Amino acid sequence: MENEQGGLSPARIETLCDGVFAIAMTILVLELHVPDPVPGLDLAASLRHLWPKVASYAVSFVILGTLWVGHHYQFHFMRRSDRALLWINLFFLLFVSFLPFATALVGSFPGERLAVLTYGCTLMGAGLCLLAQWEYASRGGRLVAASADGPVVGAIRARVVAGTMFYAAATLTGIWSPSAALLMFAVMPILYLLPTRIDRHVKGA
Amino acid sequence: MENEQGGLSPARIETLCDGVFAIAMTILVLELHVPDPVPGLDLAASLRHLWPKVASYAVSFVILGTLWVGHHYQFHFMRRSDRALLWINLFFLLFVSFLPFATALVGSFPGERLAVLTYGCTLMGAGLCLLAQWEYASRGGRLVAASADGPVVGAIRARVVAGTMFYAAATLTGIWSPSAALLMFAVMPILYLLPTRIDRHVKGA
Amino acid sequence: MENEQGGLSPARIETLCDGVFAIAMTILVLELHVPDPVPGLDLAASLRHLWPKVASYAVSFVILGTLWVGHHYQFHFMRRSDRALLWINLFFLLFVSFLPFATALVGSFPGERLAVLTYGCTLMGAGLCLLAQWEYASRGGRLVAASADGPVVGAIRARVVAGTMFYAAATLTGIWSPSAALLMFAVMPILYLLPTRIDRHVKGA
Amino acid sequence: MENEQGGLSPARIETLCDGVFAIAMTILVLELHVPDPVPGLDLAASLRHLWPKVASYAVSFVILGTLWVGHHYQFHFMRRSDRALLWINLFFLLFVSFLPFATALVGSFPGERLAVLTYGCTLMGAGLCLLAQWEYASRGGRLVAASADGPVVGAIRARVVAGTMFYAAATLTGIWSPSAALLMFAVMPILYLLPTRIDRHVKGA
Repeated sequence: MENEQGGLSPARIETLCDGVFAIAMTILVLELHVPDPVPGLDLAASLRHLWPKVASYAVSFVILGTLWVGHHYQFHFMRRSDRALLWINLFFLLFVSFLPFATALVGSFPGERLAVLTYGCTLMGAGLCLLAQWEYASRGGRLVAASADGPVVGAIRARVVAGTMFYAAATLTGIWSPSAALLMFAVMPILYLLPTRIDRHVKGA
Repeated sequence: MENEQGGLSPARIETLCDGVFAIAMTILVLELHVPDPVPGLDLAASLRHLWPKVASYAVSFVILGTLWVGHHYQFHFMRRSDRALLWINLFFLLFVSFLPFATALVGSFPGERLAVLTYGCTLMGAGLCLLAQWEYASRGGRLVAASADGPVVGAIRARVVAGTMFYAAATLTGIWSPSAALLMFAVMPILYLLPTRIDRHVKGA
Repeated sequence: MENEQGGLSPARIETLCDGVFAIAMTILVLELHVPDPVPGLDLAASLRHLWPKVASYAVSFVILGTLWVGHHYQFHFMRRSDRALLWINLFFLLFVSFLPFATALVGSFPGERLAVLTYGCTLMGAGLCLLAQWEYASRGGRLVAASADGPVVGAIRARVVAGTMFYAAATLTGIWSPSAALLMFAVMPILYLLPTRIDRHVKGA
Repeated sequence: MENEQGGLSPARIETLCDGVFAIAMTILVLELHVPDPVPGLDLAASLRHLWPKVASYAVSFVILGTLWVGHHYQFHFMRRSDRALLWINLFFLLFVSFLPFATALVGSFPGERLAVLTYGCTLMGAGLCLLAQWEYASRGGRLVAASADGPVVGAIRARVVAGTMFYAAATLTGIWSPSAALLMFAVMPILYLLPTRIDRHVKGA
């Protein structure tokens, strides 16, 4: 429906985006196939084989969480939408919806360089879309609220740049050591649990 | 909940529609099966076999994007809803939810005429539903906002007609050359990235 | 979030419900497996085998549509929610989410009495939940708007009762002739495309 | 979009949460595989083998319902959101999205202690997240409405504590008797159908 402030309402992008995240998070678990009941074989032993898949499921879920939180903070300040913003978001969601496949790849081939690179590039793509979105929307206050002044714009940009560079570093590390890269991907969300400068701005808004 | 302007609120159609699009976009990736780890076989070689499926996944995702953007622009002007609009949307979503199957068909049989025709007809069906929706809703301002005057109605109609005719042309091309048709489907969304007359009306609204 | 008129807001039931419908509609298509490319076998022949599944997919999609439209009309008048309404809706969604399985059953065993009975009982369960919801919500204006007066309450009740009785009749027919029952399920949504007394009340509201 | 009362709006958490619940509820049914048509084998016999899966599907659906209702009641009083609340919800959804896998495990190995323990721990995790959320949000009225005074806070806390302790008791029981534990999981939602002290507060609000 029409937006009082002119332009398209950003609400529907949020709905589509939340839908894609909800599904991507939930279908990650479809990769966890229940082992067939085999007489003579222990269930505990079967489940132990699933362990790399369970771990990559939990890590991907939490990484999807960081991307969703990042998107959420940007849209907190979004007031209008336009054709370009719609398409930036669609490309962002293209990477998000690809992550379950990349996760399954890493879960099946945990030591393979190519699997880790695919995973890392998917995350870098998503991070770059978030960065493009913020640059486009905040430039000259094009689509954001008046409360998104210089410090807010800078704090959000710094966050997205740091995250994307971390993903790039982990991906590059994966060329030499796939397992070191996986460790970096697993550790990264912990940094995002801590409040930052942005949170002060959001609270003051 | 009740709409102040009488009639059903269009909000729930948007929610259902965003949900179906989010799921259709995300389950496209379920067709990408991770190759089984086979000793002696290269992962890179296995992934290379997936290439037609990855390409048809990306193209279908972006085409779903164009349909979603088209629907979004129409609902920007929608103020009321009625039984007929609900059913036009349900038939639109029938084609949208069928697209993952058509995509999988093209990904498995990229050179087959029948696969390409199924894909093209699904897109034409979705386009015709969007056209029917706009004709029905805008005729005499039946369901749209007062700001949807003659030029707006014409600009949106022109867009939908052009898109549907393009899909029809690509489908007909597929009778002679399936691969030429696939190229046309892949190229088409690029035209939709560019702003048009409608965007000026939306901004001014 | 809190409702100005006291009680829980009905908005979240709508969101959950639209989500379950969107997913049920879209995963219906997951039953349509793309045939494996077999050298020497015609794609057209393979697709012809899929025909009963495609038909049951389209019929179930449209039947889900009628249930969604029915739910939509009831919630047009809903102003408050409470624990009982939440649970009536959850049982309604239990039947809705079971429909893809019942559809797959009918698609694989189109002539089997047991498959048709499962399908019919699922629809009757959903219909009875819609009826229970309306009886509970409209009794003494418990949860509905003041505009939901006697004629509106009666018109909606008549519609739900007629639909549920039609499903019951088709299910009973299935005991003698499974294919006659399937025909009845396929024809039924056509009756729901036509506007009724309720539509006048909604427009006047 | 910005919240008038400062801080992030809780609306998007609700959307993501409703999406994950809708999908988790619906993909439970994907575990119910339609038996292949085998000449000479009765469909009724095949369906009888599915019975433990159908039962665990229905129980899990209803348990997801209790978790959703519990979340719904808490968010009825939620007015603001912050980074910590986003992450508590993401971990809550991690357990919710894991439940379909735990359900499939119990459906395939109904008598196995390890399957029942996995199932019980998933529910306990979800319950503890709901408890953490309420403790965090209600402490000093941090994120909740002014109407969430002492009695309301206590009533909701008592409910979540009781539910989580019940899940813990059922899980412990599962160490000695898996089937007794399953019975407890099946019975538990019935207690949640009854109105409680909270409902009076919600109605008065």
